[in-house]
Amino acid sequence: MARKKNAFYAQSGGVTAVINASACGVIETARAQSDRIGKVYAGRNGIIGALTEDLIDTGRESDATIALLRSTPAGAFGSARFKLKSLEANKREYERLIEVFKAHNIGYFFYNGGGDSADTCYKVSQLSQAMGYPIQAIHVPKTVDNDLPITDCCPGFGSVAKYVAVSALEASFDVRSMAKTSTKVFVLEVMGRHAGWIAAAGGLVQDHGIPVVVLFPEIEFDEARFLARVDELVKAHGYCTVVVSEGCHYPDGRFLAEQGTRDAFGHAQLGGAAPVVADMIKRAHGHKFHWAVADYLQRAARHIASKTDVKQAYELGKAAVQLALKGHNAVMPTIERVSDSPYKYKIGTAPLSEVANVEKFMPRDFITEDGFGITPACRRYLLPLIQGEDYPKYQDGMPVYATLKNVAVAKKLPAFELK
Amino acid sequence: MARKKNAFYAQSGGVTAVINASACGVIETARAQSDRIGKVYAGRNGIIGALTEDLIDTGRESDATIALLRSTPAGAFGSARFKLKSLEANKREYERLIEVFKAHNIGYFFYNGGGDSADTCYKVSQLSQAMGYPIQAIHVPKTVDNDLPITDCCPGFGSVAKYVAVSALEASFDVRSMAKTSTKVFVLEVMGRHAGWIAAAGGLVQDHGIPVVVLFPEIEFDEARFLARVDELVKAHGYCTVVVSEGCHYPDGRFLAEQGTRDAFGHAQLGGAAPVVADMIKRAHGHKFHWAVADYLQRAARHIASKTDVKQAYELGKAAVQLALKGHNAVMPTIERVSDSPYKYKIGTAPLSEVANVEKFMPRDFITEDGFGITPACRRYLLPLIQGEDYPKYQDGMPVYATLKNVAVAKKLPAFELK
Repeated sequence: MARKKNAFYAQSGGVTAVINASACGVIETARAQSDRIGKVYAGRNGIIGALTEDLIDTGRESDATIALLRSTPAGAFGSARFKLKSLEANKREYERLIEVFKAHNIGYFFYNGGGDSADTCYKVSQLSQAMGYPIQAIHVPKTVDNDLPITDCCPGFGSVAKYVAVSALEASFDVRSMAKTSTKVFVLEVMGRHAGWIAAAGGLVQDHGIPVVVLFPEIEFDEARFLARVDELVKAHGYCTVVVSEGCHYPDGRFLAEQGTRDAFGHAQLGGAAPVVADMIKRAHGHKFHWAVADYLQRAARHIASKTDVKQAYELGKAAVQLALKGHNAVMPTIERVSDSPYKYKIGTAPLSEVANVEKFMPRDFITEDGFGITPACRRYLLPLIQGEDYPKYQDGMPVYATLKNVAVAKKLPAFELK
Repeated sequence: MARKKNAFYAQSGGVTAVINASACGVIETARAQSDRIGKVYAGRNGIIGALTEDLIDTGRESDATIALLRSTPAGAFGSARFKLKSLEANKREYERLIEVFKAHNIGYFFYNGGGDSADTCYKVSQLSQAMGYPIQAIHVPKTVDNDLPITDCCPGFGSVAKYVAVSALEASFDVRSMAKTSTKVFVLEVMGRHAGWIAAAGGLVQDHGIPVVVLFPEIEFDEARFLARVDELVKAHGYCTVVVSEGCHYPDGRFLAEQGTRDAFGHAQLGGAAPVVADMIKRAHGHKFHWAVADYLQRAARHIASKTDVKQAYELGKAAVQLALKGHNAVMPTIERVSDSPYKYKIGTAPLSEVANVEKFMPRDFITEDGFGITPACRRYLLPLIQGEDYPKYQDGMPVYATLKNVAVAKKLPAFELK
């Protein structure tokens, strides 16, 4: 029988409130299978850790610390925005990966990320066939954007949805209190570069009696209709709340606000749609406004994470290890919804060839005909994902979050320069 | 024995996560003293409700609903930004108040607000002497800004401090994860027009290993020194967090960002310091950034309220009623700190003449010598105030917050036009 293989785990792309819960699922499951899996090495800063042989020995962390990852936000091993080029375009990187995997006897590759990362994982999965190195690459889904295909939802999304729904409700109560003499419109900007899932969660406040307008990236922004709708709500209710996705754009593709910089994947770095929208309303109708940009607060908000989301994040990490042990390669465990109410789901599997670089947008029938709200179908989809609270422990008034030792594994290879 | 008097309660100025807990304290205590206090009428939208005889009969709300106020953010009866002019400048308004109080047999005036509102409450308290109408006016302190004098802290502050400390910690974990290839600086803008108490709470993340720079309104902004400090931290730690108060300003008094509008009190309406600071860092050092503006989210965040704060908010509402029944007028119940650790306090009393229009700033010895952080003395002050969690109940994934019926009391007087 072959010497048992070690596993490599890494976190990629924008982090979430529950990506460490997936890490916890991977590591705890691997530890429980120590007769079949050797060490779990984590990549320091995603795939960069593999390329530079900067591996973290997770075995140096106690069971208690690994368990604490379940309630710790962000990426405990460091994440990276770094996309592997194709095998043809950059064979050097793939050869290096194989060298590192060989040097550390790595046979399992667990990559925890979104759509761009699924592409990286898919490319690694092809090393077996293309370059003759036996590796099983399993993608663990993660993205607050909820835009991966096939899986019903993505770990990270349920928690950001809960944060946005709760925050929008609380701020709406605030503006409702102030509207008589002061603020009449509150604008909350949320994430979602291309898909409006997060913004949709803001639409849930309507069930709590709040007049709300949601601006989705899927719906081209129509300033005149938007301003008319806001004014109509302010006249009827005395106030209104606007939830605007950072990805909201004009018909010509121009974002409501663009900072002009681009990230490593070539995506425009967004931010600042809220003040633009608020100012627009002020100019048109004179309504006093307040605006907030949640930015990282929303995706890091482990303190108000969805219990359902935390559970699924853990389960998908666990499922990834189980798939590997069953001999799978180039797949991603998924959430398959069985029923909305009572909410039931099972863990499924999707081939990475069908996941990489595919974005899932809000279906048109999840958005009201006027484009400014969510439909009952969307509510049925969203509500199960925000169910339950999963509070971290607190000490001295603050949540107890894990900071790992992240002890490096001794290097065996010459240095490698990232290009 | 005189016919027992009714009470008037109103909420004023910017609302908080726990102002309704004070309302709960007032109403529950008055209900328990129904042999001495008649009805509790709430002003719809603060003092405006009194002037326009728009009174809410809180007796129409069940005990369970009133109890739910304790865990409901914002102002359940509507707040107002409306400052009474002096008796000499606007006798008409004071005469109207007396008419309304007489018409509804109101002998107790409970006003729940900050510094500007204490001024209103003080003016009402003078009606007894100046205009011969017997009224007992008690101010219930409330302000996220924590800038009232005499009282050790103000209800609303502990919860916003907890929100800011927790959010800054979570977002700092996020930027720490991303720093290798992406964001290196995270900027969080918080409230605090003139006093840096809220920004100071962001400084608590330093105890959790986070490199943080705090920008206070009390310290004139020095761009060169600030940029050098940020770069030093990024070089040492790979990333840093900046917490900037909306009231941070240049030596000439110019705010880092000013929207150019002013509120009813003539204060500049602020917002947008975070993007200004982030852009400044980007231009100087090229560090990729993310920024958030918490705005209403911070002061409405009942979901992460401080248990200590909720308790004190309730107790001060209760104490206000007790002071009234003891015959007091023109006073405010206060928090008197007895010890930091273990945290002990008692309820004291302050004369409104010493509270109205006085702002309490951060003492210089709460801010580090370089002006960018908080001292151990500040930590000792802050930590007791964020202790304990006081979670609302949840139903179907969302917090259960009270929306009152707010049934109007029948009017007895001709209409009154606000000028």
